Amino acid sequence: MGAIESPIMLTGTQHVGRVADALQAWAFARDPEMGVTTWGLDTVVGECSDMYLSDVRGRHVRDEHVFAALDNATGGPVEEGAVGGGTGMVCFGFKGGIGTSSRVVPSDAGGFTVGVLVMSNFGRREHLTIAGVPVGRELQHWSLPVLSEKDEYDSEKTGSSIIIVLATDAPLDARQLHRLSVRAGGGLARMGGLQSTSSGDFVIAFSTTNRTPHHPTAPTFEQHVATETLMAHQQWPANVVINWLFEAATEATEEAILNSLCMGQTTTGRDDRVIHALPLEEMMAIMKKYGR
Amino acid sequence: MGAIESPIMLTGTQHVGRVADALQAWAFARDPEMGVTTWGLDTVVGECSDMYLSDVRGRHVRDEHVFAALDNATGGPVEEGAVGGGTGMVCFGFKGGIGTSSRVVPSDAGGFTVGVLVMSNFGRREHLTIAGVPVGRELQHWSLPVLSEKDEYDSEKTGSSIIIVLATDAPLDARQLHRLSVRAGGGLARMGGLQSTSSGDFVIAFSTTNRTPHHPTAPTFEQHVATETLMAHQQWPANVVINWLFEAATEATEEAILNSLCMGQTTTGRDDRVIHALPLEEMMAIMKKYGR
Amino acid sequence: MGAIESPIMLTGTQHVGRVADALQAWAFARDPEMGVTTWGLDTVVGECSDMYLSDVRGRHVRDEHVFAALDNATGGPVEEGAVGGGTGMVCFGFKGGIGTSSRVVPSDAGGFTVGVLVMSNFGRREHLTIAGVPVGRELQHWSLPVLSEKDEYDSEKTGSSIIIVLATDAPLDARQLHRLSVRAGGGLARMGGLQSTSSGDFVIAFSTTNRTPHHPTAPTFEQHVATETLMAHQQWPANVVINWLFEAATEATEEAILNSLCMGQTTTGRDDRVIHALPLEEMMAIMKKYGR
Amino acid sequence: MGAIESPIMLTGTQHVGRVADALQAWAFARDPEMGVTTWGLDTVVGECSDMYLSDVRGRHVRDEHVFAALDNATGGPVEEGAVGGGTGMVCFGFKGGIGTSSRVVPSDAGGFTVGVLVMSNFGRREHLTIAGVPVGRELQHWSLPVLSEKDEYDSEKTGSSIIIVLATDAPLDARQLHRLSVRAGGGLARMGGLQSTSSGDFVIAFSTTNRTPHHPTAPTFEQHVATETLMAHQQWPANVVINWLFEAATEATEEAILNSLCMGQTTTGRDDRVIHALPLEEMMAIMKKYGR
Repeated sequence: MGAIESPIMLTGTQHVGRVADALQAWAFARDPEMGVTTWGLDTVVGECSDMYLSDVRGRHVRDEHVFAALDNATGGPVEEGAVGGGTGMVCFGFKGGIGTSSRVVPSDAGGFTVGVLVMSNFGRREHLTIAGVPVGRELQHWSLPVLSEKDEYDSEKTGSSIIIVLATDAPLDARQLHRLSVRAGGGLARMGGLQSTSSGDFVIAFSTTNRTPHHPTAPTFEQHVATETLMAHQQWPANVVINWLFEAATEATEEAILNSLCMGQTTTGRDDRVIHALPLEEMMAIMKKYGR
Repeated sequence: MGAIESPIMLTGTQHVGRVADALQAWAFARDPEMGVTTWGLDTVVGECSDMYLSDVRGRHVRDEHVFAALDNATGGPVEEGAVGGGTGMVCFGFKGGIGTSSRVVPSDAGGFTVGVLVMSNFGRREHLTIAGVPVGRELQHWSLPVLSEKDEYDSEKTGSSIIIVLATDAPLDARQLHRLSVRAGGGLARMGGLQSTSSGDFVIAFSTTNRTPHHPTAPTFEQHVATETLMAHQQWPANVVINWLFEAATEATEEAILNSLCMGQTTTGRDDRVIHALPLEEMMAIMKKYGR
Repeated sequence: MGAIESPIMLTGTQHVGRVADALQAWAFARDPEMGVTTWGLDTVVGECSDMYLSDVRGRHVRDEHVFAALDNATGGPVEEGAVGGGTGMVCFGFKGGIGTSSRVVPSDAGGFTVGVLVMSNFGRREHLTIAGVPVGRELQHWSLPVLSEKDEYDSEKTGSSIIIVLATDAPLDARQLHRLSVRAGGGLARMGGLQSTSSGDFVIAFSTTNRTPHHPTAPTFEQHVATETLMAHQQWPANVVINWLFEAATEATEEAILNSLCMGQTTTGRDDRVIHALPLEEMMAIMKKYGR
Repeated sequence: MGAIESPIMLTGTQHVGRVADALQAWAFARDPEMGVTTWGLDTVVGECSDMYLSDVRGRHVRDEHVFAALDNATGGPVEEGAVGGGTGMVCFGFKGGIGTSSRVVPSDAGGFTVGVLVMSNFGRREHLTIAGVPVGRELQHWSLPVLSEKDEYDSEKTGSSIIIVLATDAPLDARQLHRLSVRAGGGLARMGGLQSTSSGDFVIAFSTTNRTPHHPTAPTFEQHVATETLMAHQQWPANVVINWLFEAATEATEEAILNSLCMGQTTTGRDDRVIHALPLEEMMAIMKKYGR
């Protein structure tokens, strides 16, 4: 029906059910009519596999963690790196996790914001690319995830998945949001992501402007729609609003992934497994070497 | 980009290229700037195979027929049966072709119209169902298309394809139009259509209300959207606008197919092949037998 | 990746998280390497809203019920009606729930079976259609779900959702299974389903023949694929395998929904709400009246 | 039905109908039974707009050009640059057109080839990126397409569209080919493509190995399928066949676009409009400046 009616939560693969269940309980607690006189809740929970670092069989995510995340959610700057669902994530063999970025398009193209939050958990070391520079190939001396003889999975070595949450105040309908989602995939490709086979890469995109009334009072309601064609008497780049939004979606996704890496911290997980943070100074030296 | 910028034309499979080419020529003639300072045209041409009755190798559809169809198009009642693209169509082994129908939803649900035009060319005789009555099984004594030893196709016997064009003045976006298209498929199923394998069954759906400005003058423009949720302080059936539109899409499609059959006339095609019109009196007697 | 790696579970909307979580726990218990050296589990849980009859806020579905369902699952005939996830379902204002049906295609078309299990929870009374007979219109004197002044939902009156699980031993790939899923929607339409707006209607389709090796031993593996074109030197109806499967998908879905109604039992739910079983004798009399 | 039954032709937007019609005529001439005892042809024609350089209103593409293209098609190296449909294409404000590239995956991953042919007609100058180097930003002094006061289109400045044809001898089904198509989009993103709004960007992907029998002789037929999971007792990168194919699709698309630029030649089109070839020496100097 074109609406998201739940907070969006991100977690590890094996915790999706538990997080969805706690989210339902939290929603029940806030609305005593839910499930009695009004329906709900279609929960939205995204996941990537954190089993390299995390003791996933321990089922350490419990209701109280979900409630705390929901009750303490605020606006403003977002904590990045190994926080929340991002705690156990691995990206290009370095520490991944939560990253965010945003772009504002020019005022004569509407002045809209596109914001992206990622939970990064993908990528082979040699594919890591930062602003076009083959950083990963220069950082092959940093240890990769070590798998045992018995390990049957390859997600940390081959790259696994990413969840991309894209929000905008541009008034976009479902078709247009899908178009932005495809372009978010472009930002993933520019970082060196292959969307390898072991898991799904999702974009959850929504507009904060066009809201669906829960109980409309007339057969139709008004919405604004962003233009996809040339605005009269103007010249690009100012004149096609959605092209600016496409560029914003690509760039913000690329940068959000980069930020998830830059904010990572070396982490020791289960069985003394260590994933290093992206070495920032070394990275900057490589950037310089390649003329940046 | 969510817009149809061309008249919608329907023809036989082997004439799609020719019709699209003539449509482009016609558009050029009407707009001397097209292809010079403004772009165009993304042509929309639908097809079903009419090779049982038609001499398709003769390539009898020429530019002048396309121009005449375009120049003579008018509003008002639509000619049905073996006209235009429908000339060579076969449906449940009887004469198919063009059929139309429409529904108006109640005024407190917006008073919108859903209109459907089909080009019917599908269906096995024994599946023909009219208002739930197994008419086809009672009409097995009417001859079926006869195929020769060499004939390698089965489309007339097994059912082939249908093009469904659905228009509405309800203000629907692309996602909502897709929802209506799926329900149009329900009308096809109720007539006994299986969507058998030999061809594609398409719905081309559009809203006449929400138009995309060719040259918008601001970064956004306003549109109305039909409600998909319960309207406040009302009770079904008046209160969910899109449910009324769904019902209209299903019913109008079912009836448009029926009309394409009822308006068919016994037709002799290539190689003295004869396809009979649906025998209306016999059909009515069968309906009566089944309590209608 | 084209594989289902979990049992398929069906439940009420508000229990999806809990059932998925218990399913994960059950899988962990059966495979001590899961989450350590091998990945898993992508849980598959379908839902319809049972809030008219059920005390959904009571969260009565607990881990032990899920474990029991999984541990006691067997082959053979399936219990139908108000069982499992179907316990609180309402269909055309009568008692819905679990129903199954299947078809076997002729041996010269492969002899394959298509089996369908539905959890039915949709439909407006007046739309109920059995084998084409407008049974619902003749049963308007049976009480409909009664909503209070405060009730903001309409799912029981307007129809809500259905989950259709389709299994076949025909060797179909993902594209072909999608084709069958669309035709299952035809069976839904024939029963009078509109796919109304308040919820999603899903088909979960799989082939039991073409299995994806967990650890292949060569870069490619062999699969059989069902034919979608005319078999040489044969005539329909024996000669296009997938058309038989399409017909089976439509018919088995229609009949599975009917069976879910026929096996329903009058049920009293929360707040003394009563949903009647489809009155079978009265239904049979109506069928007779309409010549069946 | 999962099969391509026509040669794939590429042309300018306004010539699609004409090319499809000539392709139909050509097929009729080769098979006297087509349209009589056997069906056909579902033509496949891709297009990008070449109206900046070409006199599209002149309708210069005629049947004889299509017949010549079909009759003279051969295996072996493909002519690149301003040939065929690529003649009038513009890419990043330089001369675009036809480009090809391919990759072979390691023998222990099957030794398969992925080949890509593009018709490139997209991209804003400042976005042009070659192997990660911001070449476009360094080539801003080269003239851009000049539009007149009246020009209402922006495709040459803003980027327009691309057709990507991807062929492989890996035995992939439709779902897997779709997965490769998405990754081809990654190659487009890496070159600086935004998939801007003015046109569609398509991938036409097919496997040369898994062929659909025109007249099967049994209800099922055998096909090989490439593995998407870890091969036993091996370690990445050799062990997940489809990841190699994903990488090949991304890389070959990126390189095919680059080749379409490198093989471009400065071209004067209608109204003395000039589009320059990518200045290769200057480009190489820029690559060197950025450490390549």
